[in-house]
Amino acid sequence: MFERIYIEEAKRRPGETVTIAGWVARTRDLAKIKFIVVRDKTGEIQVTVKDLGLYPGEGLGREDVIAVTGKAAQSKIANAGVEFFPDRIEVVNKSRQPLPVDIAETSQSELETRLNWRFLDFRAPQTRAIFAIQNRLLSTFRGWLTENGYTEIQPPCIISSASEGGADLFKLPYFEKDAFLAQSPQLYKQMCAISFEKVFTVTPIWRAEKFNTPTHLNEVRQMDIEQAFADDEAVMKVLEKILVHMLRDVKEHCPEELKTLKRDLVIPELPFRRVTYTEAIEMLQRAGEQIVWGDDFTKPQEKRMMELVGKEAFFLKDWPAAQKAFYSMPYSDNPEVVHAFDCIYGGIEISSGTQRIHVPELLRERISKKGLHPENFESYIEAFAYGAPPHAGWSIGLERLTMIVTGKDNIRECCMFPRDRERLTP
Amino acid sequence: MFERIYIEEAKRRPGETVTIAGWVARTRDLAKIKFIVVRDKTGEIQVTVKDLGLYPGEGLGREDVIAVTGKAAQSKIANAGVEFFPDRIEVVNKSRQPLPVDIAETSQSELETRLNWRFLDFRAPQTRAIFAIQNRLLSTFRGWLTENGYTEIQPPCIISSASEGGADLFKLPYFEKDAFLAQSPQLYKQMCAISFEKVFTVTPIWRAEKFNTPTHLNEVRQMDIEQAFADDEAVMKVLEKILVHMLRDVKEHCPEELKTLKRDLVIPELPFRRVTYTEAIEMLQRAGEQIVWGDDFTKPQEKRMMELVGKEAFFLKDWPAAQKAFYSMPYSDNPEVVHAFDCIYGGIEISSGTQRIHVPELLRERISKKGLHPENFESYIEAFAYGAPPHAGWSIGLERLTMIVTGKDNIRECCMFPRDRERLTP
Repeated sequence: MFERIYIEEAKRRPGETVTIAGWVARTRDLAKIKFIVVRDKTGEIQVTVKDLGLYPGEGLGREDVIAVTGKAAQSKIANAGVEFFPDRIEVVNKSRQPLPVDIAETSQSELETRLNWRFLDFRAPQTRAIFAIQNRLLSTFRGWLTENGYTEIQPPCIISSASEGGADLFKLPYFEKDAFLAQSPQLYKQMCAISFEKVFTVTPIWRAEKFNTPTHLNEVRQMDIEQAFADDEAVMKVLEKILVHMLRDVKEHCPEELKTLKRDLVIPELPFRRVTYTEAIEMLQRAGEQIVWGDDFTKPQEKRMMELVGKEAFFLKDWPAAQKAFYSMPYSDNPEVVHAFDCIYGGIEISSGTQRIHVPELLRERISKKGLHPENFESYIEAFAYGAPPHAGWSIGLERLTMIVTGKDNIRECCMFPRDRERLTP
Repeated sequence: MFERIYIEEAKRRPGETVTIAGWVARTRDLAKIKFIVVRDKTGEIQVTVKDLGLYPGEGLGREDVIAVTGKAAQSKIANAGVEFFPDRIEVVNKSRQPLPVDIAETSQSELETRLNWRFLDFRAPQTRAIFAIQNRLLSTFRGWLTENGYTEIQPPCIISSASEGGADLFKLPYFEKDAFLAQSPQLYKQMCAISFEKVFTVTPIWRAEKFNTPTHLNEVRQMDIEQAFADDEAVMKVLEKILVHMLRDVKEHCPEELKTLKRDLVIPELPFRRVTYTEAIEMLQRAGEQIVWGDDFTKPQEKRMMELVGKEAFFLKDWPAAQKAFYSMPYSDNPEVVHAFDCIYGGIEISSGTQRIHVPELLRERISKKGLHPENFESYIEAFAYGAPPHAGWSIGLERLTMIVTGKDNIRECCMFPRDRERLTP
């Protein structure tokens, strides 16, 4: 294998004989001179071929892989930057022509076509920008939590029963038994938090929901924390802090990517406003909406409520018990209301969380109240019988967060290999 | 929720009135004084109760969760460290008694029992040490790769067909189609590397292997890299560097955990010795073993070969094509041998990798030669038709690496929630 350096580095070392390698972005032929723009992960450079004998006999097409040995030099044309003068051009691997998707102008290709040719689409500047930002979000998330004493956990993906008693699970034969794909790491992160105290995970989850919408996928990745000796307010504080930290990090480290995506990222102010469900209902009623306490918000009401709150990011908290999972801790003085919250950012719910019930008897009572059967949840309930501290947690969808940060309106853009009702490939 | 500080911090702030909270590790009753040893994630402290009116009326048992407000003070008994004098003791949540597993002395409980009560087992010092080390391995792995310009990728878990043409896949109904759980991110990391150039992932994979052994699980996590413009030697260099980096990091940051596990971690010297398959066969033949070129090593031969090489870590490379996957790049001057390697560390194969074939025609030829049908691999082959650079990669099993580093001989100890033929819970 030839030794090569990145284009970015070659530009910093003019006059030195080096080898660069990458893809042909475009070519231009003049009578006595040829230009090849070569691209690698660090950028592009123009290769100026004056000795036409160096030019490959078979010609060059877009996305051909080439290695060029030569020297970089400041261009004599003002503002043209650095060009590269070759001593040798080697064709490493030819690309079939024409290309099935337009890499230079993502917008020219339909999303479905781009997803069909995802490996080529990964070379498009817009797509690269999305995943560069997703990378920052992930590494900043993990980095902050690790620095702050959280233990990374590895919840199982194959489970024996529905963790939240819900439907929409993918079922599979597991040797002699039936098993399911986890729709949430809920029980597992609770089991870890009641011993490790502060835990986090980034893990795939699956929901066998039949509908196909621009904001849903059947396989997504969740970024979760769970924390002992914490109530809902304690983990809301962690959420707002880490969210702003991630957004600031993207703004600082991905200015080029945000520019490519024409995205002006607004960093919300700390602390986020806390709006109770009851306040939200009253706000809507005053604005003339037909809604009463206990109702869920319709989509237009949700939108209206966000306008009324008027903040880039806020918490909607203290929900009616009926609208949240059975394991949500009820207020001791008003068991119809639970310690549960949603975090709304950029007009979308990006996270929800609760303080969990850590007392077995109360858990049994609340399961029954939901019309479910405690005997179906015995192993879940038993986990809290041996010294479970109070605990709380939340979950952010990685792809959904990426959508909002990058300003995309189809979640498929923000998942490398999306899985929906129709799509199982590539 | 009460505000509490960690025990470690309370010890550093003697004389201040603070609240600590955690689990009752053990208690001791003398006539006029009671001792409670409280444990949290940062350590233990002895609470000395002189005013017996403070002691909870119902008594205290192991793993009861309590919060104690009071002051830390240097003990008057030499070498006894810091003790805690309470003003108030609150019982937060009682534990059922007796405990189903022994937390203080892991060895007293059978592994199966410990796994059945995994959330309690997470409180045992040995188990905590294993996962503290696994955490370091993971964060150091990701950190090093991120710093060195690798992009984290998210390969899909549900796939439409067998990526390596192998058997032992878990099959599941996916709406109107059949799908499989990925047994490897192979194709996906290749598709990413031929565009992003340097990629990594930590991802779950599944193998529906029927046998139940101490070193196999049906769900594990793989740590993978894939790199463009790289051959096998280039990624072997990355592997030995990152492995030594991870081991040094564990040795430096987890001395207490290694002590708990009675583990003396040997850091292998760089560079690792490269032993070719042919040399290994000759070595064994000279040592009197019945083996000829082309044979696979029997278990005893493998052990013998490791003794003959005599290194803590080494590469076994240049394998016969017949023993490696169809996508392994053959040597141009000897197509019976491929650019493939295993990395042996501590007597166990912890990683294997290859330079991949990036030329569609060669890929078709090699698939046929294996007795497989290229038409079943068309979408895989097509991915290399549009400008694929040469590329190579490898994979480390997270749980297997944790086993070797922690000196455990059952992989179940090194997986938070192991899945094997029999075990689907917790």
